[in-house]
Amino acid sequence: MGEHSHQLVRLLDELGRITDEPGRLTRTFLSPAMERANHLVGGWMREAGLTVREDETGNLIGRLESPQAGAKTLLLGSHLDTVRNAGRFDGALGVVLPIVALAELKSRGVTLPFHVEVLGFSEEEAVRFSGAYIGSKAFTGRLRVADLRLRDARNHTLLEVIEAHAEKRYTPPKAAHHKSNLLGYFEVHIEQGPVLEAKKLAVGVVSTIASQARGRLTFRGKAGHAGTTPMNLRRDALAGAAEFVIFAEAFAGARPPLVATVGTINVPGGAANVIPGETVLSIDVRHPDDAICDAALAELVRQAQRTARQRQLVCEWEPTMRHSATPCSPELTKQLARSVRAVQGKSLTLMSGAGHDGVVLAALTPIAMLFVRCRDGLSHHPDEYASPKDLDVALRVVVDFLERLGAEK
Amino acid sequence: MGEHSHQLVRLLDELGRITDEPGRLTRTFLSPAMERANHLVGGWMREAGLTVREDETGNLIGRLESPQAGAKTLLLGSHLDTVRNAGRFDGALGVVLPIVALAELKSRGVTLPFHVEVLGFSEEEAVRFSGAYIGSKAFTGRLRVADLRLRDARNHTLLEVIEAHAEKRYTPPKAAHHKSNLLGYFEVHIEQGPVLEAKKLAVGVVSTIASQARGRLTFRGKAGHAGTTPMNLRRDALAGAAEFVIFAEAFAGARPPLVATVGTINVPGGAANVIPGETVLSIDVRHPDDAICDAALAELVRQAQRTARQRQLVCEWEPTMRHSATPCSPELTKQLARSVRAVQGKSLTLMSGAGHDGVVLAALTPIAMLFVRCRDGLSHHPDEYASPKDLDVALRVVVDFLERLGAEK
Repeated sequence: MGEHSHQLVRLLDELGRITDEPGRLTRTFLSPAMERANHLVGGWMREAGLTVREDETGNLIGRLESPQAGAKTLLLGSHLDTVRNAGRFDGALGVVLPIVALAELKSRGVTLPFHVEVLGFSEEEAVRFSGAYIGSKAFTGRLRVADLRLRDARNHTLLEVIEAHAEKRYTPPKAAHHKSNLLGYFEVHIEQGPVLEAKKLAVGVVSTIASQARGRLTFRGKAGHAGTTPMNLRRDALAGAAEFVIFAEAFAGARPPLVATVGTINVPGGAANVIPGETVLSIDVRHPDDAICDAALAELVRQAQRTARQRQLVCEWEPTMRHSATPCSPELTKQLARSVRAVQGKSLTLMSGAGHDGVVLAALTPIAMLFVRCRDGLSHHPDEYASPKDLDVALRVVVDFLERLGAEK
Repeated sequence: MGEHSHQLVRLLDELGRITDEPGRLTRTFLSPAMERANHLVGGWMREAGLTVREDETGNLIGRLESPQAGAKTLLLGSHLDTVRNAGRFDGALGVVLPIVALAELKSRGVTLPFHVEVLGFSEEEAVRFSGAYIGSKAFTGRLRVADLRLRDARNHTLLEVIEAHAEKRYTPPKAAHHKSNLLGYFEVHIEQGPVLEAKKLAVGVVSTIASQARGRLTFRGKAGHAGTTPMNLRRDALAGAAEFVIFAEAFAGARPPLVATVGTINVPGGAANVIPGETVLSIDVRHPDDAICDAALAELVRQAQRTARQRQLVCEWEPTMRHSATPCSPELTKQLARSVRAVQGKSLTLMSGAGHDGVVLAALTPIAMLFVRCRDGLSHHPDEYASPKDLDVALRVVVDFLERLGAEK
């Protein structure tokens, strides 16, 4: 491991101690800890030669100008906010690693033939406000008036919070860049899943940020006395729901990379001695292809209704969320895979089942993502961990990627 | 329908309006409504020729002495307390119907060669105190010092509540009767289940009050991100639990009259986008035979553990309740079935999956129970309903039963 990898580990540790809640890591939109984090990371940017500014929504933006005439800009970044009781890699890694990569290039005297902006987005996790991606939406000119009406737990609107922080009136700006001036957006992130660990690889290349669809299924049967109702006279809502849970698992299992998850289940007003009259569950389906995701969900809902009919139950379906897939740029991804092969020997392409700032950036410019193995696939937890060795691989991949991009220009 | 059946319907309506909670029917242990109910029902007992007393625990006891020398006593009864927001038949029917039956015998000038006591127990539903059967336990000399330490929601002990009501010190008494002086205990109750409705019969004879066993199963797997964890790398606690729910249903369904119910299920801390790391469910098993009930529960727990092993989950089992079966007296039941055949044309024997005061009385004397069809098998609900026609059948069965018992003596 080189000196810069050691520095990367140290900086992530230091940033991981900046928190709004003593004893655990929590940084939310425009909070005091977010201001301190921006101050700390902004200092590291300056040391790496970047000029630093912050926009009204708390996005931290470090820019390294290329001496090249007519150069375009490559965006690199992720978010600096966290969930409550977070780990220190989710988001932070994608901001700090590019800074260290640029510091390394600087120390070797390498100049790039394109401008670089390192972005620390102020809000991706939707902890303070219920809508995610406030930072990247503001940066890309996609923050809407409806977003500004979102309210936090203290009943302040997003607009009030931004204006209080900026100490002036705020109107959502246009995108910080015109499409034609951009080379693309590149994000490094921990995988938040177990695939790289299972394949024994430090890093992998993301093909697509998956399509997501989510909703609620309610099975209704007939509540009854658990002791006095024979099995053949029951209309047990939970039994129907359980059959669906098993079906959904097998259905997705037979169609990788489709995933289907029943994350919550509940018998409202249930008791140990009462046959469930109603059962409510959530279903979450993801696939890199929008059409396959939608078709899978439709088939799952049809199966739930078939199961309900067979059991003389009623099944109600209520969709609650739908995000289209965001494909990564084939060109950037191909170049990234080349760097991964150069450093790690082989490359692996995998989908991202989680959403990322790249989903928003993709509307403005081609995107690419590098995933880094994390222990047990764990994220959003204080035990979240990426090893120094894997961080070293990731850093070398990013340096190689920047140099290859530069060589091509 | 005869005059006395009409009276039975009227009295049940009247008693159903005596409540502690305006707008819904609730009568709990030694409450003001229970005092008013005892006063009302005691008046009906006196009109039917009974002498009436109340014991320290609020049990209402009406006695009709036989002129016969050396006569024994037949006990008839049920409870006058209710669940919250109750129906007007559960409990009340088994107290009021015998009074009306005795009134009818009196109007026809029939005297019985045995004494009769009609019992309105003060507590069976365990609403005010968490232990059920306080009334019948006190009557049968089975109230223990541990029971007296039970506390209600206002933190008063059962002993304090009894002593405040009785206005004197209270020591649990011996049984009100010696075994050798009793003919048995006979209880009329709504079925609280759908069997009689399915068989199109007004009444049926109970063979046994079932054995009950209950506990909690906890499946533990590994929480994970619903988007980033492929199906084949999951250890989904809910999927294991769902498999168990389906197994339990099929297992009991193949072994009538066994019943098995998963009434509650929960994913603690679950969210739509998180693979369940833990799932907790309740299991309730009932069968007329203790050994079969225990063996069935043991097999269900073994299957839960097999399922868990196959899925790399852990399964924990915690028993929470176990009641032995209470068989009804073969002799009394045979006589009761004869009366049912005489009135209804055919008889049907069924188990009681619910507990009743008879469970406690059985320790003192042989018991018999008559079930009356209730609409949709519904009980513990304001819509609880037994039709006047079915009540008429039940009344005629009880009158016939008393006369036949008398003829045999």
